[in-house]
Amino acid sequence: MRRIRITVAYDGTEFHGWQVQPGLATIQGELERVLGEIEAAPVQVAGSGRTDAGVHALGQVAAFSLVNPIPAANLQRAMNRLLPRAIRVMEAVEAAADFHPRFQAKAKTYEYRIWRGEICPPLARLYVYHHPYPLDEAVMTRLASLFEGDHDFTAFAASDPKDLLGESKVRRIFESAIVRDGEELVYRVRGSGFLKHMVRMMVGTLLEAGKGNLDGDDLLARLSGATPGKAGPSVPPAGLRLISVEY
Amino acid sequence: MRRIRITVAYDGTEFHGWQVQPGLATIQGELERVLGEIEAAPVQVAGSGRTDAGVHALGQVAAFSLVNPIPAANLQRAMNRLLPRAIRVMEAVEAAADFHPRFQAKAKTYEYRIWRGEICPPLARLYVYHHPYPLDEAVMTRLASLFEGDHDFTAFAASDPKDLLGESKVRRIFESAIVRDGEELVYRVRGSGFLKHMVRMMVGTLLEAGKGNLDGDDLLARLSGATPGKAGPSVPPAGLRLISVEY
Repeated sequence: MRRIRITVAYDGTEFHGWQVQPGLATIQGELERVLGEIEAAPVQVAGSGRTDAGVHALGQVAAFSLVNPIPAANLQRAMNRLLPRAIRVMEAVEAAADFHPRFQAKAKTYEYRIWRGEICPPLARLYVYHHPYPLDEAVMTRLASLFEGDHDFTAFAASDPKDLLGESKVRRIFESAIVRDGEELVYRVRGSGFLKHMVRMMVGTLLEAGKGNLDGDDLLARLSGATPGKAGPSVPPAGLRLISVEY
Repeated sequence: MRRIRITVAYDGTEFHGWQVQPGLATIQGELERVLGEIEAAPVQVAGSGRTDAGVHALGQVAAFSLVNPIPAANLQRAMNRLLPRAIRVMEAVEAAADFHPRFQAKAKTYEYRIWRGEICPPLARLYVYHHPYPLDEAVMTRLASLFEGDHDFTAFAASDPKDLLGESKVRRIFESAIVRDGEELVYRVRGSGFLKHMVRMMVGTLLEAGKGNLDGDDLLARLSGATPGKAGPSVPPAGLRLISVEY
């Protein structure tokens, strides 16, 4: 068996997230369907992590094992012929036999885009969160950097079946910054890993700060192991995109 | 009755074009539906022209008459609350009682976007035509300017019921140019008016030139009143967007 690593871009609008679910269109499900056709046998695809329904990706990474000796570049083209246009294999390469995209990931980068103008342009609407209301963007920009470093993100995670395993909720954030890009406020975060809903709850918390509902001390208090999911409301999935995964 | 002029942006992907069709979602149909709610009576909306199914607009112009005295800015907000997010009223202003967006239009600008890279990014796919095959872009750029001036566009029009009226097919093109924008080849055309399918047939003809299937003399021959629809194949609607209408 060969091991293949792929980089995948997708528009999450029409999918029920990454993970296979019976009877629902998912990214993993579509990849396994076309690889099953190519291999003429079931193929299991492992991703670097799950993305929720409606979340997009420019550089998700996944891997699978294959008997078929088709060259990687031809495999990429064959997959793109069989996949819906909302999912594209941007790269396909041979990988080490033990390559696992989740356990070996060193860092991930996400972006969250907020449209600040009063009217959200129809051609942008699927890829941003429209929030035209007053926000103190200077405060948000300042507080965003407080996420950098090692923190207990218990308060920034949806409850997860894996919680029963008592896994650590400490994650290292290398970069956490907000920049203006025309009418868009763009939050960019690069970290060692992310808990379920973590980025969207971080953005929700920064929005609360922008509305004047919490300050830097409040945010730091929530970074020291509070109750799960109590940090702040989440924000809608369409604004979120997984940019890249590093190994 | 007041006369109101609106500028409308839309994502044409999910609509059966501009014009009302019974039982089908159209841009004009959606506008008339929400105005009917606001006016509590049927309202007829006139557009600057029809766009085909799948064609987008950043600045379509339309007009309608209303008894309701709601200020134009509030009307705009009310319409945007009732419309699907794929359609946005970008501006609403009082207009002269006799304003007609089609008969009084002085110029229209369209853009057609061709994605030249081998893989079409999922987040761009609904708004471009993917053509990754070899094209002599220098030839296309040179021939694009031949459309400028007054020409008989009979060869660049789908047959139309209005043909029975013997209306002139001469149109004036003020600007016709191709530029590269990263991975996109962008055709921009500004003219006095456009026949049915005309822009898409102009682009199809330039693509034929880029493939080496016709030259400047062939193109000029087709601009002197040939058989309807014989100039070249049309291109898909997703790449086309109406940019603006001038009065």
